[in-house]
Amino acid sequence: GHDGEDLNRSTNVVYQAHHVSRSKRGQVVGTRGGFRGCTIWLTGLSGAGKTTISFALEEYLVSHAIPCYSLDGDNIRHGLNKNLGFSAVDREENIRRIAEVARLFADAGLVCITSFISPFTKQFLHIHLVVDICIFSGFTGIDSEYERPEAPDLVLKTGELSVNECLHQVLEMLREQNIVPSEIMEEVNELFVPENRLNLAVADASTLPTISITKLDLQWVQVLAEGWASPLKGFMREREFLQVLHFGNLLDSGAINLTVPIVLPVSTETKQELDGCAAIALEYQGSRVAILRNPEFYQHRKEERCARQWGTTCPQHPYIKMVMEGGDWLVGGDLEVLERIKWNDGLDQYRLTPRELKQKFKGMKADAIFAFQLRNPVHNGHALLMQDTKRRLLERGYKNPVLLLHPLGGWTKDDDVPLDWRMKQHAAVLDEGVLDPANTIVAIFPSPMMYAGPTEVQWHCRSRMIAGANFYIVGRDPAGLPHPETKQDLYDPTHGGKVLTMAPGLTSVEIIPFRVAAYNKAKKAMDFYDAERHAEFEFISGTKMRNLARSGESPPEGFMAPKAWKVLVDYYNSIQKDK
Amino acid sequence: GHDGEDLNRSTNVVYQAHHVSRSKRGQVVGTRGGFRGCTIWLTGLSGAGKTTISFALEEYLVSHAIPCYSLDGDNIRHGLNKNLGFSAVDREENIRRIAEVARLFADAGLVCITSFISPFTKQFLHIHLVVDICIFSGFTGIDSEYERPEAPDLVLKTGELSVNECLHQVLEMLREQNIVPSEIMEEVNELFVPENRLNLAVADASTLPTISITKLDLQWVQVLAEGWASPLKGFMREREFLQVLHFGNLLDSGAINLTVPIVLPVSTETKQELDGCAAIALEYQGSRVAILRNPEFYQHRKEERCARQWGTTCPQHPYIKMVMEGGDWLVGGDLEVLERIKWNDGLDQYRLTPRELKQKFKGMKADAIFAFQLRNPVHNGHALLMQDTKRRLLERGYKNPVLLLHPLGGWTKDDDVPLDWRMKQHAAVLDEGVLDPANTIVAIFPSPMMYAGPTEVQWHCRSRMIAGANFYIVGRDPAGLPHPETKQDLYDPTHGGKVLTMAPGLTSVEIIPFRVAAYNKAKKAMDFYDAERHAEFEFISGTKMRNLARSGESPPEGFMAPKAWKVLVDYYNSIQKDK
Repeated sequence: GHDGEDLNRSTNVVYQAHHVSRSKRGQVVGTRGGFRGCTIWLTGLSGAGKTTISFALEEYLVSHAIPCYSLDGDNIRHGLNKNLGFSAVDREENIRRIAEVARLFADAGLVCITSFISPFTKQFLHIHLVVDICIFSGFTGIDSEYERPEAPDLVLKTGELSVNECLHQVLEMLREQNIVPSEIMEEVNELFVPENRLNLAVADASTLPTISITKLDLQWVQVLAEGWASPLKGFMREREFLQVLHFGNLLDSGAINLTVPIVLPVSTETKQELDGCAAIALEYQGSRVAILRNPEFYQHRKEERCARQWGTTCPQHPYIKMVMEGGDWLVGGDLEVLERIKWNDGLDQYRLTPRELKQKFKGMKADAIFAFQLRNPVHNGHALLMQDTKRRLLERGYKNPVLLLHPLGGWTKDDDVPLDWRMKQHAAVLDEGVLDPANTIVAIFPSPMMYAGPTEVQWHCRSRMIAGANFYIVGRDPAGLPHPETKQDLYDPTHGGKVLTMAPGLTSVEIIPFRVAAYNKAKKAMDFYDAERHAEFEFISGTKMRNLARSGESPPEGFMAPKAWKVLVDYYNSIQKDK
Repeated sequence: GHDGEDLNRSTNVVYQAHHVSRSKRGQVVGTRGGFRGCTIWLTGLSGAGKTTISFALEEYLVSHAIPCYSLDGDNIRHGLNKNLGFSAVDREENIRRIAEVARLFADAGLVCITSFISPFTKQFLHIHLVVDICIFSGFTGIDSEYERPEAPDLVLKTGELSVNECLHQVLEMLREQNIVPSEIMEEVNELFVPENRLNLAVADASTLPTISITKLDLQWVQVLAEGWASPLKGFMREREFLQVLHFGNLLDSGAINLTVPIVLPVSTETKQELDGCAAIALEYQGSRVAILRNPEFYQHRKEERCARQWGTTCPQHPYIKMVMEGGDWLVGGDLEVLERIKWNDGLDQYRLTPRELKQKFKGMKADAIFAFQLRNPVHNGHALLMQDTKRRLLERGYKNPVLLLHPLGGWTKDDDVPLDWRMKQHAAVLDEGVLDPANTIVAIFPSPMMYAGPTEVQWHCRSRMIAGANFYIVGRDPAGLPHPETKQDLYDPTHGGKVLTMAPGLTSVEIIPFRVAAYNKAKKAMDFYDAERHAEFEFISGTKMRNLARSGESPPEGFMAPKAWKVLVDYYNSIQKDK
């Protein structure tokens, strides 16, 4: 290289190829796989909002594990370009240098965001992916000399749009250009057949051999179709199954948390009959509901699967029992689901998909969404967690935090309170104002319950992350139950929170772990347990609560909203009558 | 921002703070945690080797998951600085601009490597970490105008050192300055008490309460002390234990693969006695061998631990049996090991630590090290894998590939061939020239054997990665055994290779997966199985081999080197005599 000393040598400056390939760089830079380098070039007048949008975009990308860097005009003027003035020549040189720096950043594998007044002049860049966005306020321009870019990729009228809406449009465009992967853009990968191809698919399905699926299987079809397990494209193939069991993450598009196998068990007979088919139709109660393409059959090693997923192989565990009774083979493949799954139980209106939830949050102009997973009735201890979370978010400066109260609606064990009664109970809780209906969405999470503790709580969290939650509340012993043999907790009650807090692949959600809540006799209210005031507290277990409800008694005042308690009493009455 | 249009406004250019904190950026940029941004500034004359070293450094850092970028003088001259000449003023501007770009890269969280003729002039950089390295050939300089930097951080005489040696010195310095974490530098974190503090530590240990440890525990102490589980600082605390069981990686300094719990079980009595102590001495056969500081006791949830680690809780599994019989508590902490662990069995000379192995590889000038883990005698099928790996590496352009033949020397189950006989058998294999002694290191891997299949094979791989191997051979059913109850393979024989190939946190080792090798009757040699020539092959199982050896018969010619077979026969004779 010749940067000066040797004046006698000709300027035979030679381009040196890097030893590090772009694909290797893509693997290392950032925690999602795939090379990402490009430049996003924002231009617009002073005050149009370029800096705001460039920093919002940077924050979003970083929180989604896409490394990027904002080259802001002012910052550059302090450093690299501090020896430039404002003459026409200097302005051109300013842009040229920035363009070259952006190119270096893109080569290094980052998304580089630049924002300047002057539009992107294509002459400065080459062999380089640039996204050209023009930003202007939309108010009558005074400066007639402002050069609009010739054909920008996107125009944002910041006078008419909020920052979030601008951000959304930018991300939409980045996704279309494959700069940002779909799974970050919407983070929702639905598996429904598009409307315009439905007839074809239905016709196709009618020609295919079928697998008859159970109600449980159909619940998983719903989970997959609606995108809760994004970016999973169908029932797991062996590769995904092994990644999930061994690493708790899908690894092939960068690491995203997924800890529970989502699989379709089939019998040995079915496997022998259908192995080698290019496509299979899944049939439920006589209707073909989905197509499984390029199916892959592999052994269902049940003992190993249960041991790794549940930390036990106890055959009396209610889900393990179903696994053991089910097929000895698993079939994975690419799923195409013909129609929305409807249960026609009067509750379908609550079964909002991740996309629908995100739309709802957007419509409410929520700036923070905190999710609460539950499979039990809501008592005031739960409500305390949710109220306290809201308080903390307001303290942090959020203006409009919204609660997603998200009861699980798939399969549950026999002695859990059924979904329809729980929905009535939750409605009563909101009715009594324990939670604020104006800032709460009650929706149903379609997943089956697996009672797999620290493994499952990550599934509960990641699926709400997909649906737009950026905060997830976790309490004591999430997704746990008593060990069927020993009767002790199957899982250490602190492990769910500990494991969730450390779990990789949950980049865009913040975990809110909680201390234990219990009934405070002095305050006649639920309170966070304080060992120093131990005598004030009474622990009311699920069992104790059930026994009180069954006998028609009332719990201590402040334990649960009265109307909500009444629903529980009615429930236990109804099942006693059935006996 | 004002980059030109508005000539009437004052140049009130304001520094805009990024919304993305450096710590958040550090989490995202690169797959190791911790902010890394800095500049490495290499200077030296033309031809001194700056470009070579900068690209070698870049390759090394990227392969260790530290994102970086080389700003090469020639490359910059093509782009950013193409409008500069070679006048004194232009040369100074050239450097200044590069320095500013380097600062931007560092701010973005990358290690930026720059290499130029001119030395680093500190006036150009501020609020910025720079490492200043002067490189010169050591040959008599002709150019008297060459400005040596005033006080470089490092001087490399490339005329006297190889590229690797230069690279090593650079990395050593980066580690000292905490730019590169120790765990990447040497990747070996030993836990021995330094010589100069030994007396103090021994005296300290003599005052401490003790835990009496078993031979198995001592083997794990040796594993930890020698750094095989780097960066683990001692027996696992609960946090590490959960990370390992749930994610197969230690997560706190960036993700590094570790899939097996390394724990010290103790009885409830011991826990009650010692909980709250600041330090405990570990005592083996009457001698205090180590100190465990800041100990943390936590429940040994044995069923869950075994289920997650082994995919079974079968009490007849030989290691699970020991777990079940062991303590109900685990104690983790920071380990200080007083002395090298010696077994005085005539084999200590083979028990090379990771550092000693790396020194040996360096002394042999190996440019590729391929490791082979085994717990059985070597037959020609194993040898085929090793020979074929060497062939492939030579084809890829490596000049001096070295084999690390690394039999496991810790605890094994009763019916495995003991270590001393295996070492005799391996020596015979080398003696017969089946493997080439000149390019082979035979050493003993001190870890206990766990028979945990796909979970354990990652441990086998990552520990050899720590010891300097950059290639790891994996075959069929690694670390597996028959299910004690069903007698079928406990693990799918393909899963070890599949899981290992996908495993995160094994950044600097390449997995070499193998197809099945079997005896080819036509060739009278071991061969890679080919279904199309199925009739030529005979599968000689471990059981069959043992039976032949016990009966003093010979296997088919070409199955095993004759002298090596004789060792096996002698072994089985010796144990029959004992009965």
